[in-house]
Amino acid sequence: MHLNPDIPRVVNQPGQFSFENGITVTCSRAGYAEGVLEVRPTSLNPHGTIHGGCLYTLADTVAGTAAVGAGGLSCVTVSGTMEFLRPATGKRIACVATPKKEGRTLSVMQVVLTNETGKTVATGTFTFMLSPTKQP
Amino acid sequence: MHLNPDIPRVVNQPGQFSFENGITVTCSRAGYAEGVLEVRPTSLNPHGTIHGGCLYTLADTVAGTAAVGAGGLSCVTVSGTMEFLRPATGKRIACVATPKKEGRTLSVMQVVLTNETGKTVATGTFTFMLSPTKQP
Amino acid sequence: MHLNPDIPRVVNQPGQFSFENGITVTCSRAGYAEGVLEVRPTSLNPHGTIHGGCLYTLADTVAGTAAVGAGGLSCVTVSGTMEFLRPATGKRIACVATPKKEGRTLSVMQVVLTNETGKTVATGTFTFMLSPTKQP
Amino acid sequence: MHLNPDIPRVVNQPGQFSFENGITVTCSRAGYAEGVLEVRPTSLNPHGTIHGGCLYTLADTVAGTAAVGAGGLSCVTVSGTMEFLRPATGKRIACVATPKKEGRTLSVMQVVLTNETGKTVATGTFTFMLSPTKQP
Repeated sequence: MHLNPDIPRVVNQPGQFSFENGITVTCSRAGYAEGVLEVRPTSLNPHGTIHGGCLYTLADTVAGTAAVGAGGLSCVTVSGTMEFLRPATGKRIACVATPKKEGRTLSVMQVVLTNETGKTVATGTFTFMLSPTKQP
Repeated sequence: MHLNPDIPRVVNQPGQFSFENGITVTCSRAGYAEGVLEVRPTSLNPHGTIHGGCLYTLADTVAGTAAVGAGGLSCVTVSGTMEFLRPATGKRIACVATPKKEGRTLSVMQVVLTNETGKTVATGTFTFMLSPTKQP
Repeated sequence: MHLNPDIPRVVNQPGQFSFENGITVTCSRAGYAEGVLEVRPTSLNPHGTIHGGCLYTLADTVAGTAAVGAGGLSCVTVSGTMEFLRPATGKRIACVATPKKEGRTLSVMQVVLTNETGKTVATGTFTFMLSPTKQP
Repeated sequence: MHLNPDIPRVVNQPGQFSFENGITVTCSRAGYAEGVLEVRPTSLNPHGTIHGGCLYTLADTVAGTAAVGAGGLSCVTVSGTMEFLRPATGKRIACVATPKKEGRTLSVMQVVLTNETGKTVATGTFTFMLSPTKQP
């Protein structure tokens, strides 16, 4: 994801896949980000629990925000892994992203997704390739 | 994902996260499945390319369909990894899922996602835990 | 890995791939394990740093020990991912494994590998399938 | 792994972790490599099957050889994932590495490991960061 210094203005916007699916970045600073999924009837899979792709979208969005951090950087996701630890249900899923490594070219972020009772429903690891933000 | 024998009837339905985001399973047989993402203006990330979470949703949905195969099985995703090999753009992304292993308890499926020009934009590996479908 | 209640007696033994390569499990209790790699001239890759396969062996061995925990369980590794965050050098690498999830059938363990100065050189996530230990 | 143009001379050498554990690169050309593990009594885990770390070492070594390909490049492993599909036994395990993507900065390689009867025992995906080989 390309993210300019005012991340919420770019990500939390109509038209964005994440935003259109109920995902908002709620906190963003260097090497740290938080976000939340407001669960909708259309967030679900055939089991009636939250679709893994919806959780992945939350995770990737928040991790990418943490990777670009304080601004001046752009990133693309190189790879991402998720472990789905228990069925995800409820009205809200929170996500926190913190660094495993912040490099000049690559950053590796870990995410923890929790339900409303504070239980971890999924975890993940995302690798991003960084580049300086092109100034307009 | 829980999937009964008539997978398309369950997955390709309004209300499903995948379907609501333009994803349709187009082929399903034992150990094989195909699907397609019809790209929308709301499928994108801040770069203007298709969001990794949208591609992941396509991959997970098609891989799960292949895992349950000919029916009689239900599955949940244990973990999934994706590699994003080039920016995904265009009107349609196709996904094919084939087995790395089909076990009694666990199945491992690989996916290849291609754009309209036939180039691979992403690959992935998904592990599913299987159980017999509860008969209603 | 199959591990009976007295893990150190089974794992820390001549003939074991891990032990033969300088790896010892140093702590083992329910949902937690520690281990150490004593680096040898033969632990290295062409760069002269510790081979990723050697680090992976340390990680898998310690994570499996944590997965079987207090005994009575046997486990096999379903999958494992590692992120190599910086070149691994020095005389010793320590590894700590803690649970992401402990289930009846599957357990997911995370590992952190640190060098002698306390810097994280690699992290990983391992999924194990559990079964009761066969009693002789 | 750093690998100069004559890969076999550098990797298939006493002192290398892979070589010391019975692993030899047997074929190397641009975007392709093969290798083999000659199984030893010390290649095993407590189950008596080949240790996942030994298979990972084979995979990483062969994938890195494929990544640097025709020479002039050096690479380090960014991350690697392995799926262990069935117990690995027998006298030899063969590994083939082919590209998922060959980029200027990152290359993604997939590996397939087969036993003597031709059955796939494990698969994996490795991401490498490339840089020009320093000339001495």
